[in-house]
Amino acid sequence: MSAFLDFRNPTFRSFAFYCMVLILKMFTVSIITGQLRLSTKSFLNPEDADRHGGPEFVRSHPDVERAVRTHRNDLENILPFVLIGLFYVLSAPSQTVAAWHFRLFTAARLMHTVAYLAALKAPTRSLSYTAGLVVSISMAVQVVLTTFRRD
Amino acid sequence: MSAFLDFRNPTFRSFAFYCMVLILKMFTVSIITGQLRLSTKSFLNPEDADRHGGPEFVRSHPDVERAVRTHRNDLENILPFVLIGLFYVLSAPSQTVAAWHFRLFTAARLMHTVAYLAALKAPTRSLSYTAGLVVSISMAVQVVLTTFRRD
Amino acid sequence: MSAFLDFRNPTFRSFAFYCMVLILKMFTVSIITGQLRLSTKSFLNPEDADRHGGPEFVRSHPDVERAVRTHRNDLENILPFVLIGLFYVLSAPSQTVAAWHFRLFTAARLMHTVAYLAALKAPTRSLSYTAGLVVSISMAVQVVLTTFRRD
Repeated sequence: MSAFLDFRNPTFRSFAFYCMVLILKMFTVSIITGQLRLSTKSFLNPEDADRHGGPEFVRSHPDVERAVRTHRNDLENILPFVLIGLFYVLSAPSQTVAAWHFRLFTAARLMHTVAYLAALKAPTRSLSYTAGLVVSISMAVQVVLTTFRRD
Repeated sequence: MSAFLDFRNPTFRSFAFYCMVLILKMFTVSIITGQLRLSTKSFLNPEDADRHGGPEFVRSHPDVERAVRTHRNDLENILPFVLIGLFYVLSAPSQTVAAWHFRLFTAARLMHTVAYLAALKAPTRSLSYTAGLVVSISMAVQVVLTTFRRD
Repeated sequence: MSAFLDFRNPTFRSFAFYCMVLILKMFTVSIITGQLRLSTKSFLNPEDADRHGGPEFVRSHPDVERAVRTHRNDLENILPFVLIGLFYVLSAPSQTVAAWHFRLFTAARLMHTVAYLAALKAPTRSLSYTAGLVVSISMAVQVVLTTFRRD
């Protein structure tokens, strides 16, 4: 039986849950960015500026740029985590060890978003970024080791 | 039998088809960006500018920037859709409901690309972006609900 | 038996290995970017600049920008490759043909990173980018053809 990618597999169920939390969190940053563009009247495109007051609103704003950077960092870290995780779940990890990887990554990325958007004092954001990266690398290395195993 | 990720499963076959359409569309934006860089002689890197006329061509152009923004929005929305969809297909959705999610998302993102590249009057682009996001969130929520189900 | 996504399937094992190599390579670019920010004292955020000398270090540096562009190109190409590949492995490709797709893509993207970071003379980087894109498109087209097959 190779039903690792199955909601009856507790490791997969846990992985699916945290992945959806992380992706919905990413979408929230996207929505926040849009709201900040409207509230600060800072648009990227002339057609948007025209609708909201005029061409002078094609401009940038530090708060918008900060949200854009938060989102980009999510793309660079959360999307790879979900991809690595699919292989990791298929590598039959210990359920307990896997669950802690997923929880720690999710906590680190939630902290990263808060630290970024609220401009918390360094190195809060860097530490949460590093914690997430270490979890992802740990999972990727375990997948690589599984590809070397012969059984 | 848990063969959800199987081309004999009509829901998966439909999902695979629309995912490939969406990713090939993304690659098309990438190719358009490259062609615009050449036709407007606007390069990011000195080594590229040197090959195409000289260092003064390290510069930006509004059409190139627009294509770059279109591509980035695709990264932020199409990649998460494909990831969410893998979990969603595994959650055994109704075939009809699932197919409509995939079709609506694909139509919304094709419209988004056209609206962005052609600079259509606002809010055409925002509406197509929102339609795609709502579909993705709907799928993600259904996956979360599946992780809560016990059976 | 539909155990395509299984480490006992040599095509999947090979795919998993190269995906992890590519994602770990992406993370390496991320770490290089961070190190370049520190060594050139070029930060995006006031809170980071404050920790490393003062507000005048919120500034950009060509080497940092180059690493950021390398990373973005990876996001645009490596993440779609991994996603396409999951469908491709499920489409039951010839093991030999599949392995060559994975190897060629990985070699192309390693070359792309070296060419970008070292600013190799054009068109080294463009050629490696194009090689990777052609491999991805080849896999995507094979997936589309599989969705049309009835059996």
